[in-house]
Amino acid sequence: MSNQRFACIMAGGSGTRFWPQSRAALPKQFLAFQGSEESLLQATVRRIRGLLPVENVYVVTSQRHVAETTRQLPDLPVDNVLGEPAGRNTAPCVGWAAAHVRARDPQGLMAVLPADPYITDEAGYVATLDKALCAAEQGSMVTVGIRPTRPETGYGYIECGAPLGDEVAVVAKFIEKPPLEVAERFVQEGKLWNSGMFFFRCQVILDQIATHQPQLSAFLSACSEAIAQGNERTLVEAQYAALPSISIDHGIMEKAQAGSIHVVQGDFGWHDVGSWTSAWELSETDNEGNATVGKALLLDTQNCYVRGPSNKLIAIVGMSDLVVVDTPDALLIVPRERAQDVKKIVTHLKESQGDKYI
Amino acid sequence: MSNQRFACIMAGGSGTRFWPQSRAALPKQFLAFQGSEESLLQATVRRIRGLLPVENVYVVTSQRHVAETTRQLPDLPVDNVLGEPAGRNTAPCVGWAAAHVRARDPQGLMAVLPADPYITDEAGYVATLDKALCAAEQGSMVTVGIRPTRPETGYGYIECGAPLGDEVAVVAKFIEKPPLEVAERFVQEGKLWNSGMFFFRCQVILDQIATHQPQLSAFLSACSEAIAQGNERTLVEAQYAALPSISIDHGIMEKAQAGSIHVVQGDFGWHDVGSWTSAWELSETDNEGNATVGKALLLDTQNCYVRGPSNKLIAIVGMSDLVVVDTPDALLIVPRERAQDVKKIVTHLKESQGDKYI
Repeated sequence: MSNQRFACIMAGGSGTRFWPQSRAALPKQFLAFQGSEESLLQATVRRIRGLLPVENVYVVTSQRHVAETTRQLPDLPVDNVLGEPAGRNTAPCVGWAAAHVRARDPQGLMAVLPADPYITDEAGYVATLDKALCAAEQGSMVTVGIRPTRPETGYGYIECGAPLGDEVAVVAKFIEKPPLEVAERFVQEGKLWNSGMFFFRCQVILDQIATHQPQLSAFLSACSEAIAQGNERTLVEAQYAALPSISIDHGIMEKAQAGSIHVVQGDFGWHDVGSWTSAWELSETDNEGNATVGKALLLDTQNCYVRGPSNKLIAIVGMSDLVVVDTPDALLIVPRERAQDVKKIVTHLKESQGDKYI
Repeated sequence: MSNQRFACIMAGGSGTRFWPQSRAALPKQFLAFQGSEESLLQATVRRIRGLLPVENVYVVTSQRHVAETTRQLPDLPVDNVLGEPAGRNTAPCVGWAAAHVRARDPQGLMAVLPADPYITDEAGYVATLDKALCAAEQGSMVTVGIRPTRPETGYGYIECGAPLGDEVAVVAKFIEKPPLEVAERFVQEGKLWNSGMFFFRCQVILDQIATHQPQLSAFLSACSEAIAQGNERTLVEAQYAALPSISIDHGIMEKAQAGSIHVVQGDFGWHDVGSWTSAWELSETDNEGNATVGKALLLDTQNCYVRGPSNKLIAIVGMSDLVVVDTPDALLIVPRERAQDVKKIVTHLKESQGDKYI
């Protein structure tokens, strides 16, 4: 069988913005956010089940998170979890998955998907991915651009060039995260958010890597051989950590020939769960605007995000706009507006306590 | 040996103002507050060691707290812990202790002391108690009145009558907790705070009980006989819970003959630890005004009271004037000014969860 569809789920994140819930041992892609029991990674894998078989899903994550990944995805073949000895950003991650796809189907089509966005319109998401995969079948590199709902300064943008059909265009330019005034202009001009999703035949991306990232390409050639010979792990352990750390955006997409990348427009409630503030925004709230995970007693309290273990009671009186995250060995209390300051806490903790609470 | 000194420590409190640290199973007298390891009860027993031997200390507490009392006071004779089958306020408590004192020394002198005030000038406290015991030796009932440092509306007041000597006077009147304007006037007029401490010969208070509380007196007579015969517990189990619930203030002191109660003035840093707010006020604070028990990381945070288990990290960013009390199964967050609203939480919990978190 050829022309099969595959997915490469990028689950290598190790962010600290969800401390103390998210730790080095359990980054956010493994956490559930909307009161459901389903983690962001599990939701990502579930959503694409209509597009391709689970045997064709590869998850690339840190070696230390392989066990958690297989635990959360029991019907994913264990060999489809690719454990990185060290994080080298997304280009090596995508290339490694491409080598695996090529070993199974040299004509294989890949959907490269971050593990951690939250999607509100799942049917729209699947329809857009299907469209992007069909576009990639023609041999181009394809991305999905999200129609902005606000002048967000935390995302990159895509400038569209010549139209190629219904909501498909050539990518004119990828643009870094802009300042607010620029973002406002971008929204007016119809620029799109960069979703970080990519679609291509495995050979297409491997050729691009050969052109723009020769060291990575050499590794991937050796890797293909090692996969065939069954000694891939030895190679990965020996060489992966020494690969250049570079994103697929910078390392490939921005260097690709003009007109070779196409963008499919999407509009399916795409959210980057970037901080406790966004977790609150995405959660169902009570009449007072409070979102709770676990057991809470909130009196005269508004617009708070309260998250604790299911066997613990969190009682709050007379507060508003607070983030409270309780775990067995660490508790966070911060105004919702300052949730990004969690990074400061993690920095202080690293200095004063080492890895104890991180 | 006669004319011995005894103490009756009243440790029957079951308040809810220190939830979630204080529970039905562990009321505040068993808790340490000032960062020391010593509970309020332990401190009360320690402070009077220079005045009388520990074998002469009786602690009256709820039956369910007898084990905790003996655990906290290992050198107190176990028979000196009087476990009440039900709380009946202070008159039965004091009477019961008086019956025990009379059994050991019919001339015995008693100091009746609440278990839970916090004292900053311990030498001054001991000197005042010594003076009050000497005054009680003459056969009167004696109390200690505290010179007010503010127009506190949470305490009762004592109006002094004819002076009897250096800082000793007849009690003209006991006055209930006043509203603020009245309290302000009281402070100007030189009225004193009612400390709730009393001093008398055991026979004096038993005679007063016989006059004003006949049902209690009958029980105490039976109790004296049962103590002699070694079957006191059976009597207490059968009758104690049915005694009228009345305080020694209302039941005896306010009914006593004019001029029969004397007051010794005291000024030794007497504090009722009445809420988390007062716990903060009495605690040592850092440069930012924060008091912490346990492990805390406080960034840009001022004037907070933060209390957690020693093996847990509490991280707070950008907050002020907060009370945070964390325990293994319940967490409280409340503005310092609203610490009294803890009662509302406990009421809600009783209604919704039964006794689970109380």
